[in-house]
Amino acid sequence: MKIDRQLIDQLTLTEKAALVSGKNSWYTAAIDRLGLAAMMVADGPSGLRKQLGSPDQTSINDSVEAVCFPASALTACSFDRELLNQLGQHLGDAARAEKLGIVLGPGVNLKRSPLAGRNFEYFSEDPYLVGELASAYVQGVQSKGVGVSVKHFAANNRENRRFTSSSNMDERTLRELYLTAFEKIVKQAHPATLMCSYNAINGTLNSQNHRLLTDILRDEWDYQGLVMSDWGAVADHPAAIKAGLDLEMPGKGAASVAEVVAAVKQHELSENDLDKAVGRVLKMLANWAPDPTSPSISYDMDEQHEFARKLAAASFVLLKNDNDGLPINDGDKLAVIGELAEHPRYQGSGSSHVNAHRLVTPLEAIQKAKPDATFATGYKLADDQVDATAISAAVTAARAADKVVIFAGYPEQVESEGFDKTSIDLPANQVQLIHAVSQVNAHVIVVLQNGSAVRLPWISQVAGVLETYLAGEAVGEATWDVLSGKVNPAGKLAETFPLRLEDTPSYLTFNANLDDENYREGLFMGYRYYDKKKQAVQFPFGFGLSYTTFEYHDLQLKVVGDRVIGSVQVKNSGSRTGAEVVQIYVGNRTSQIEKPEKALANFVKVTLRPQEARTVNFELNQRAFSWYNPKTPGWQVDNGQYDVLVGSSSADIRLSGTVELDWQPAKRLPVDQRTYIGDLLKRPEFLAAVKQAGLAPIFDKISIDKTDPTAKMFQNMPLRAAITMGVPPAKIEQLIKVMNQAL
Amino acid sequence: MKIDRQLIDQLTLTEKAALVSGKNSWYTAAIDRLGLAAMMVADGPSGLRKQLGSPDQTSINDSVEAVCFPASALTACSFDRELLNQLGQHLGDAARAEKLGIVLGPGVNLKRSPLAGRNFEYFSEDPYLVGELASAYVQGVQSKGVGVSVKHFAANNRENRRFTSSSNMDERTLRELYLTAFEKIVKQAHPATLMCSYNAINGTLNSQNHRLLTDILRDEWDYQGLVMSDWGAVADHPAAIKAGLDLEMPGKGAASVAEVVAAVKQHELSENDLDKAVGRVLKMLANWAPDPTSPSISYDMDEQHEFARKLAAASFVLLKNDNDGLPINDGDKLAVIGELAEHPRYQGSGSSHVNAHRLVTPLEAIQKAKPDATFATGYKLADDQVDATAISAAVTAARAADKVVIFAGYPEQVESEGFDKTSIDLPANQVQLIHAVSQVNAHVIVVLQNGSAVRLPWISQVAGVLETYLAGEAVGEATWDVLSGKVNPAGKLAETFPLRLEDTPSYLTFNANLDDENYREGLFMGYRYYDKKKQAVQFPFGFGLSYTTFEYHDLQLKVVGDRVIGSVQVKNSGSRTGAEVVQIYVGNRTSQIEKPEKALANFVKVTLRPQEARTVNFELNQRAFSWYNPKTPGWQVDNGQYDVLVGSSSADIRLSGTVELDWQPAKRLPVDQRTYIGDLLKRPEFLAAVKQAGLAPIFDKISIDKTDPTAKMFQNMPLRAAITMGVPPAKIEQLIKVMNQAL
Repeated sequence: MKIDRQLIDQLTLTEKAALVSGKNSWYTAAIDRLGLAAMMVADGPSGLRKQLGSPDQTSINDSVEAVCFPASALTACSFDRELLNQLGQHLGDAARAEKLGIVLGPGVNLKRSPLAGRNFEYFSEDPYLVGELASAYVQGVQSKGVGVSVKHFAANNRENRRFTSSSNMDERTLRELYLTAFEKIVKQAHPATLMCSYNAINGTLNSQNHRLLTDILRDEWDYQGLVMSDWGAVADHPAAIKAGLDLEMPGKGAASVAEVVAAVKQHELSENDLDKAVGRVLKMLANWAPDPTSPSISYDMDEQHEFARKLAAASFVLLKNDNDGLPINDGDKLAVIGELAEHPRYQGSGSSHVNAHRLVTPLEAIQKAKPDATFATGYKLADDQVDATAISAAVTAARAADKVVIFAGYPEQVESEGFDKTSIDLPANQVQLIHAVSQVNAHVIVVLQNGSAVRLPWISQVAGVLETYLAGEAVGEATWDVLSGKVNPAGKLAETFPLRLEDTPSYLTFNANLDDENYREGLFMGYRYYDKKKQAVQFPFGFGLSYTTFEYHDLQLKVVGDRVIGSVQVKNSGSRTGAEVVQIYVGNRTSQIEKPEKALANFVKVTLRPQEARTVNFELNQRAFSWYNPKTPGWQVDNGQYDVLVGSSSADIRLSGTVELDWQPAKRLPVDQRTYIGDLLKRPEFLAAVKQAGLAPIFDKISIDKTDPTAKMFQNMPLRAAITMGVPPAKIEQLIKVMNQAL
Repeated sequence: MKIDRQLIDQLTLTEKAALVSGKNSWYTAAIDRLGLAAMMVADGPSGLRKQLGSPDQTSINDSVEAVCFPASALTACSFDRELLNQLGQHLGDAARAEKLGIVLGPGVNLKRSPLAGRNFEYFSEDPYLVGELASAYVQGVQSKGVGVSVKHFAANNRENRRFTSSSNMDERTLRELYLTAFEKIVKQAHPATLMCSYNAINGTLNSQNHRLLTDILRDEWDYQGLVMSDWGAVADHPAAIKAGLDLEMPGKGAASVAEVVAAVKQHELSENDLDKAVGRVLKMLANWAPDPTSPSISYDMDEQHEFARKLAAASFVLLKNDNDGLPINDGDKLAVIGELAEHPRYQGSGSSHVNAHRLVTPLEAIQKAKPDATFATGYKLADDQVDATAISAAVTAARAADKVVIFAGYPEQVESEGFDKTSIDLPANQVQLIHAVSQVNAHVIVVLQNGSAVRLPWISQVAGVLETYLAGEAVGEATWDVLSGKVNPAGKLAETFPLRLEDTPSYLTFNANLDDENYREGLFMGYRYYDKKKQAVQFPFGFGLSYTTFEYHDLQLKVVGDRVIGSVQVKNSGSRTGAEVVQIYVGNRTSQIEKPEKALANFVKVTLRPQEARTVNFELNQRAFSWYNPKTPGWQVDNGQYDVLVGSSSADIRLSGTVELDWQPAKRLPVDQRTYIGDLLKRPEFLAAVKQAGLAPIFDKISIDKTDPTAKMFQNMPLRAAITMGVPPAKIEQLIKVMNQAL
């Protein structure tokens, strides 16, 4: 990084210390004598949360009006890079109008457990999907001259004791899952800032983790931006600066300054390290701080509301639709049930909470379109007590209707930033309602509002299920758009819906230990786990229905240089225009390592008119075939066969092919005492060496085609153990020498 | 350890080097000038394998005649400490007669995966059960003046690449599972020697692992015996001696001696370290080498054969017995089917292979009792090709019989020491046979001969299943004893039988990586995994039927000093004398750590006449309630509630109670910046301190009874993050000071 040396040299030590500490909760420090103004930052992955009132503390629910867009849990289901880019642009417009320098988001952590309290704010269980969508989003925001803070770096996958808990995992798991999205975003979208998360990794607090913040982030990935702390993540500010953290947020005011100054004076922190952080703060201000003299601009919130509606509708996932229960016909007499229709859960709690511009509830949107639709609350959100009277009223309404739409989901008090859930069940009063209503009406559609995967043990009783997650302020209009068929649903699940909490990959360990979160499932997280275990799920990753159907034909694959180029023909075989997300997975058949059956390597969303067919092209780069070898260390593609699987979901592979890669120069490994006899017996030059050494009678007995237990036992021995077969140590040395001469 | 200093001082460096290297495959070195004779060792966990022919190489199938006892996979199912002790005594008698100093066994590794090739030689998936039974066995052998070598130390749970693969696991998993049986045997039975296994643990080869061989084994456990290498396990002899390995087996002759001498001369190995190993070799010879001048003794092989029969019959596990298919009545017309009836698999392949004294096959035993029993081979063991003619003959025989006994199991070529299995299915020709025969006869009993858990997808089609594992040379008589009802089966499974291979805890990783075996399932191995995941299994750990039934009544529990004392009344509620294994499990409800639902903590086998009731007493020591805390480090019992569960299998808990333990002195933890606010809000003195500091308005809003998301989010923050709530840093320091003054 180029440091603005001249400016730094003008700063006193105290001023430097002030710059690397936030002025308060939302502003960077100002250095008036040098004309450096304070810059404001604000929460806002799904709409701005520019706090009102004193910036000396965090006050979640008191902020300027802004459009509330769908949460990332929903937008991820769009599998649509372009829509995410547009979302970013809208946020950038709003931030510019509010004179913000940096928008704090997006959150790109993986959904390791459906219990994790902050899942609604995250995209997916798959790192490729997260990286692609978040990169598009970041590019959108930054194209408007506003910076982002990609969070929470890294491996911050639970809320309980998040300030101190250590995410313990092996290097492959860290690289191949939990760092992957960050790496892609850094390299592809160049985010202005990254936000360092609260937790530790393998015992070292992230805010003091030199390996994470410097060795990997800057030295390996060549990151040129700034790292700020999550709010309150700094435990030892001088140690954090040394590790590569540039900006403490919020600052502790005079205390922060005094601490840094003292550390420099006592030679606990070098001024050089401090200058690096100061330089990055200055660079951030130079690049992203709004010009205080620029005229105020405004933006069109109603236009953004319409985009929020479009984005939500394009992301909803139709999970079940038996007997064409959906779309609802003009003539259908409708009963709407559930307090969530009237008081929808449309956004998450915590730092992503928005003071919404204009909420349109599902009940409003439906009754606007169908004034005769009846409504019954069915349950109260405030608790999970079954209310027999409310259920009875709902049953009465359902009996009188052709179709019933039940709005169900998690109440806000069980799902928020700041703590984890303990169940993935809906509240008892909602489940009871669904049971009762579905007994009197065969056309019950359940619309889900929730931040994360939910268990649906009642699913066989209802005709349809539409997953709408937390859909933003246009929730009502978007929901009706899909229910009514104005929009043909095309969303795909970005996370697996399990049959039981016990089936989830991290179930054995999640929140088991106060201090340590052991990522025992390793690489086998999300669909990588269910796939390999052949574990039945409720709905697989990538699943989602449409009001039309799609056919796949003619998969073509070709290795071209360091890429695999592919194409597939997709046809809309139904009678409505619709969009399909063509998912491309890669399965490694080659490397002798722990590995999933397959992993998402690309996706293409294509919109087709009825009966229209189109050829969809895709490309797979080296990374799609790579694994991270901690011993080298580095990413590695082994020569050999790889499956390329193309489908409509992770469990609905329509076509597959195999490619043979030979991107690595062939090399023969040297032979030593540890080389296994079974491996050597496959090599003709070894058999010749054995013969020459007069050892043929011994090795003939165990030749590689022999499958009796004794032969197999000796094949599974290294050369050094050949002494137990009667081979003298000197002869073993001789064989090794001969074999290595041939290298 | 006391070293025989005087004798050591008489030895030359070359003689010392010779003593710590085996003379050859089966003998220690002799020092003739000092009257030190070579001592012979021999394989033999289930019967002696004293090799004939040249001791310069290992020749598995050429040994003196000896009685072949059941393999440990079967004897473990006896849950009978006394029988295992008697087995040890018989082996000791045989070894003494053969003038052996040390018998190489028992193998006490855990059955982590049903694919592990050597499972037949091991006892169980549960470390408590292994430790109890193996201790009794070791005490039996050593009571005859013959030493044992408890193997394979440690974490040697796969055969593929066993010479180099690293068993990677966290410290709790190592201590609470894979070292537990060794620790108990060392402390309780004082084995003459331990055999160091081939593999590495966390990257360090066991034969060079100072932490394993010295820090843990000798310094922590106070082990006084000798450590020898598994055959060929030494890669670097001087490094091994330094780490605490005393005897390299087999020696590499002059090469071994030269290597050690050179290492001492070049100061790579201190003579002091060498002397420690020499001293332990001398001590082993002094304690266990047979007196060469003692007269030859003989032992009664026929008596041992009868014991082998009794032990096998007492260990067989009746897995299914519908419609009282068993026992077979005198009048039943019987068809016997399967090549395994004629050529039974009754012992394992590899180092435990015995040149059996007198094999009695099941077919011989049955036809002796029932001369009219018909026989059909049904399949060939040599391959898994379905033979339609053989099946057709079997079906004809089955049609004509009242009851059918099919002998099924793994052929020897798929299950042996030295390599791992790739499937837990029976060969296709046997499965096909069972399908065909069970369609024409409703009274089919399948008798299983196998070394490890097998999948039984056909079980609903047959009336009965008897698991006989590898039953030793009296397999035929023992099998008929149980089939005919002469012996009432009382064995219980010492391992879980899963429904599918994919369900097994280590499925994702087992043999996935050539070099590294990652124990990702951690503590959740065996029933600890199935329990916690609520994963259905075919047969749970501890399961086994009887020809009678048992009732459990009146569980009493009492904390007495540092023990929990319990009793339960068990009643034989059926009409045959039978034995029940009362299993006592402990469930930790207290510690905030990863933990299984329950773990076996004791067991009592009781034999009862029809309608007899007896009070069974048991005791649980501190260890039964402990976990290993790697941070202390040490074993720890947390104060709080523990469940004590008593049942007939791990999944058939009949009675349960709770004990409250307060074995640790209560202590209050000091408060610092990392102390969580939620924890503090529970303490009245904190609320007082908050009031005093004028912070009541802030903390009142998040008091511990508040459950709104914002309150829960702040409760889940450490004190240092209170700045985000507007608490100045100085006030936080003040609160910490006040709280710690109260300590």
